[in-house]
Amino acid sequence: MRLGTVVGNIWATRKEEGLTGLKFLFVQLEAPDGSPIESPVISADRIGAGIGDRVMITTGSAARFVIQDKDLPIDAVIIGIVDSVDVESR
Amino acid sequence: MRLGTVVGNIWATRKEEGLTGLKFLFVQLEAPDGSPIESPVISADRIGAGIGDRVMITTGSAARFVIQDKDLPIDAVIIGIVDSVDVESR
Amino acid sequence: MRLGTVVGNIWATRKEEGLTGLKFLFVQLEAPDGSPIESPVISADRIGAGIGDRVMITTGSAARFVIQDKDLPIDAVIIGIVDSVDVESR
Amino acid sequence: MRLGTVVGNIWATRKEEGLTGLKFLFVQLEAPDGSPIESPVISADRIGAGIGDRVMITTGSAARFVIQDKDLPIDAVIIGIVDSVDVESR
Amino acid sequence: MRLGTVVGNIWATRKEEGLTGLKFLFVQLEAPDGSPIESPVISADRIGAGIGDRVMITTGSAARFVIQDKDLPIDAVIIGIVDSVDVESR
Repeated sequence: MRLGTVVGNIWATRKEEGLTGLKFLFVQLEAPDGSPIESPVISADRIGAGIGDRVMITTGSAARFVIQDKDLPIDAVIIGIVDSVDVESR
Repeated sequence: MRLGTVVGNIWATRKEEGLTGLKFLFVQLEAPDGSPIESPVISADRIGAGIGDRVMITTGSAARFVIQDKDLPIDAVIIGIVDSVDVESR
Repeated sequence: MRLGTVVGNIWATRKEEGLTGLKFLFVQLEAPDGSPIESPVISADRIGAGIGDRVMITTGSAARFVIQDKDLPIDAVIIGIVDSVDVESR
Repeated sequence: MRLGTVVGNIWATRKEEGLTGLKFLFVQLEAPDGSPIESPVISADRIGAGIGDRVMITTGSAARFVIQDKDLPIDAVIIGIVDSVDVESR
Repeated sequence: MRLGTVVGNIWATRKEEGLTGLKFLFVQLEAPDGSPIESPVISADRIGAGIGDRVMITTGSAARFVIQDKDLPIDAVIIGIVDSVDVESR
């Protein structure tokens, strides 16, 4: 999983069946110290994350398992809103 | 998912079974501000995207779930045509 | 999917069961303008591609779906031989 | 699989169903000589790894197979605590 | 698939169930001309590869299909020991 911060929204009216009603957010991946990594990715969200929230995302085809009974064509999903992070400096 | 713009077409008459009739497009991945990321990728399209459309694509094996009853050997698919994007500058 | 050109062969007599009889080729990934991207990857081929052919490959676990009734441990497969490419300069 | 060292913890109270009770740790990927590679990733852990332990992690959707009867939306998991590594210099 | 050379061993006594008895090796990925690519990855091996062998590896969740009746949490496996490689210079 990767750490990131929700930085934006994206809207698409015309889309693949099965995705209607699913919310999509831009998430800026980041290192534990908050420095950004690459460009923001688009993640599905079902737990109500909002702009500015620090989140954990799962990428790849495992993202679809947030919904157990239907296989969705999604490759990134927010799986948790982060309370705190504690990383040792090495 | 990744943001991109449809920039071209690709034709292949001789191909794997099961892919006949599926349309393939080149999509230039891009950051929310429109700056290009890497080289264009080839995405399947079932929702009628055209050159110049801004799209969301799903990559990896989850791409196959746009078709529920058949497992296709595809690794990228256009899942939506983007209406608008709203990303905070940080 | 990615665009590439077949640039070589690889032979392996001792291999995992289930892969016997499957042909493996080196494919040099490339941008639409033909410039190479990274090092050549090894792709399975069932459609008879040869050295110099421009091809589309599917990577990741979806590659296995070229064979519907057996799950093979392959992560790249040639899915089409490219007739033509038309990409807009931006 | 990749080699790494456990460098931190992450807590998320609000998360996707099915992930409750699963422990998440930051793992710094590294080369066999211990030099760090990229930023720390977040891995699930079921075998009791702790800060400072050298571990093997599996990434991608195969990570979910640490639990056989339930498909979890996780993309990295610690699969072993490393006793020793022996790599030839070339 | 990727080309590489076996460069080392890794041992982990405490590990996830289902992995007991499976051998893990470090594989240095390389270009067809033998130049190394990135850091060595850890691959499962069932075909008896040894230090110095040139091998083909499959990465990602398809790696698990080397064992048909059990889903293992592995993301890289040696699928063949390379006899010869023939790549055109371009």
